[in-house]
Amino acid sequence: MRYLSGIQPSGTLHLGNYFGAMRRHIERQAGHECFYFIADYHALTTVRDPEQLRRNVLGVALDYLALGLDPARTVFFRQSDVPQVVELAWVLSTITSMGLLERCHSFKDKVAKGIEASHGLFSYPVLMAADILLYDSQRVPVGKDQKQHLEVTRDIAMRFNALYGETLVVPEAEIEEATAVVPGTDGQKMSKSYGNTIEMFGPEKQIEKAVKRIVMDSKTVEEPKDPDENLVYRLYCLMAAPGEREEMARRFRAGGYGYGEAKKELARKILEYFGPFRAKREALAGDPAGVRDVLEDGARRARAVAERTLERVYRKVGLRE
Amino acid sequence: MRYLSGIQPSGTLHLGNYFGAMRRHIERQAGHECFYFIADYHALTTVRDPEQLRRNVLGVALDYLALGLDPARTVFFRQSDVPQVVELAWVLSTITSMGLLERCHSFKDKVAKGIEASHGLFSYPVLMAADILLYDSQRVPVGKDQKQHLEVTRDIAMRFNALYGETLVVPEAEIEEATAVVPGTDGQKMSKSYGNTIEMFGPEKQIEKAVKRIVMDSKTVEEPKDPDENLVYRLYCLMAAPGEREEMARRFRAGGYGYGEAKKELARKILEYFGPFRAKREALAGDPAGVRDVLEDGARRARAVAERTLERVYRKVGLRE
Repeated sequence: MRYLSGIQPSGTLHLGNYFGAMRRHIERQAGHECFYFIADYHALTTVRDPEQLRRNVLGVALDYLALGLDPARTVFFRQSDVPQVVELAWVLSTITSMGLLERCHSFKDKVAKGIEASHGLFSYPVLMAADILLYDSQRVPVGKDQKQHLEVTRDIAMRFNALYGETLVVPEAEIEEATAVVPGTDGQKMSKSYGNTIEMFGPEKQIEKAVKRIVMDSKTVEEPKDPDENLVYRLYCLMAAPGEREEMARRFRAGGYGYGEAKKELARKILEYFGPFRAKREALAGDPAGVRDVLEDGARRARAVAERTLERVYRKVGLRE
Repeated sequence: MRYLSGIQPSGTLHLGNYFGAMRRHIERQAGHECFYFIADYHALTTVRDPEQLRRNVLGVALDYLALGLDPARTVFFRQSDVPQVVELAWVLSTITSMGLLERCHSFKDKVAKGIEASHGLFSYPVLMAADILLYDSQRVPVGKDQKQHLEVTRDIAMRFNALYGETLVVPEAEIEEATAVVPGTDGQKMSKSYGNTIEMFGPEKQIEKAVKRIVMDSKTVEEPKDPDENLVYRLYCLMAAPGEREEMARRFRAGGYGYGEAKKELARKILEYFGPFRAKREALAGDPAGVRDVLEDGARRARAVAERTLERVYRKVGLRE
């Protein structure tokens, strides 16, 4: 089964990113053919600072490689290294009705949040359709917010096939159930826009500081506590071994175990859990040319597939013999 | 001065195309650097038949080459052979406000005429901006109907330069005055949509038939006639030498010169005037591979310019180092 997923190069990652989606992306490599790309064309709709964009692209590549993305197995590349995607997007845009795009919630939602109402932002679903269809992707993992866009992709693919004959693979959505909604330091879903994140690869002090900010109730050290009701325990469970979890739960219930101590334990666990990833990330960061080589190799493999699809499409519409 | 002009591959050409715009395109080569392209990406917004698109692209290439386009001097190419144009279009779309495009009349006008309201049709002005800006074009000859689109191009270029620093050449419009409004067989402007055309390269019989259809008044052969009031004379003047014009005018004024005879003279003149072009077109049509080579050579030269511009743009926005 061929999976495709786009990764927004939107800055430093946090526990919510990892346990919410990235870990699953990494695990999926074991049984499937994966195409993962860093969506730098899309990022232009929100990032206007060239240095920031370059930093974010390199950063997200380092993150994924450090966390276990295997570039020998997975085709890992930068979107703009395969310009065939904008070629396909143009062809698709000529068979995409304005009505279909006007019905998409996401454009209005983003504009309401203060993102500039650019034509690029409006065209996002067409470029996303091209991202998916260019690689004959069969499965696309999507969060609930992206479900409508995948419907648009399916509509466009079916319309193309109806007009020009069977050409494009119609992909299936794989709705990512929130198997692990990761709470932020304030108890809401962990998200950069809420300012409640704990970064995975931040400096040690910063992680400790973020953990200290976790909002708890006012129980005294002595009181017994229900572990399932507190954020520290819930975050700890994401990383701790079963024995460790039981031990912390037992302590909370017994009383005499304060939040300060538990937070220290959580910070230790985060640093321990991500320690090997952090070491790998630092080694990779010391060799940015090596990372670029990895992405370029991925792009070469992606282009080989992309060129075949585009050739097929161009013949069907009459742009080529 | 670098001129850019896009040519729609929209089917067989008529006298109105030639005397209205093509002849000027050809003449302009003498004193300027010209980039002329066959707009096949744009054509996809209206042509759904792949065979027709292929035929039209080859046809318009034959027409221009036969009529004197000199591919050694002018960079003559097919739009889709320089895919950098859709790459640039994507970048530009991320800084183009929806409002700017929504204010364009052309989309609504075309939809009102029955063309499908596709996203590609709506995005036309952004792709047109990329067409122009990719080649650092300084002058763009435009009819009145395209004036607003050139304003959009200028707006986009200036916005890009304001956001990212001087990068793109802001082009000037050269409004094409209707120096020669060519009347059709019914007296309206000659246009395929009015069904009143006389084709340049159609079979001899077809040209004679079209000329016979020219609407005249009901004066008898004997009556003297005012040459300036009749369509045959106006069309004849486009092709005849000064002495020939005077001779026909004299005959009309003298009386005893009927419309039937004048029409025969006009048909003869059309065949004579376009005779050498027709012979050249037939020779070229016998060697379609040669025509493709010409377009490929043009595309190579166009890509050399396009790659430099795109590199400059990609660096500025942060897609490249």
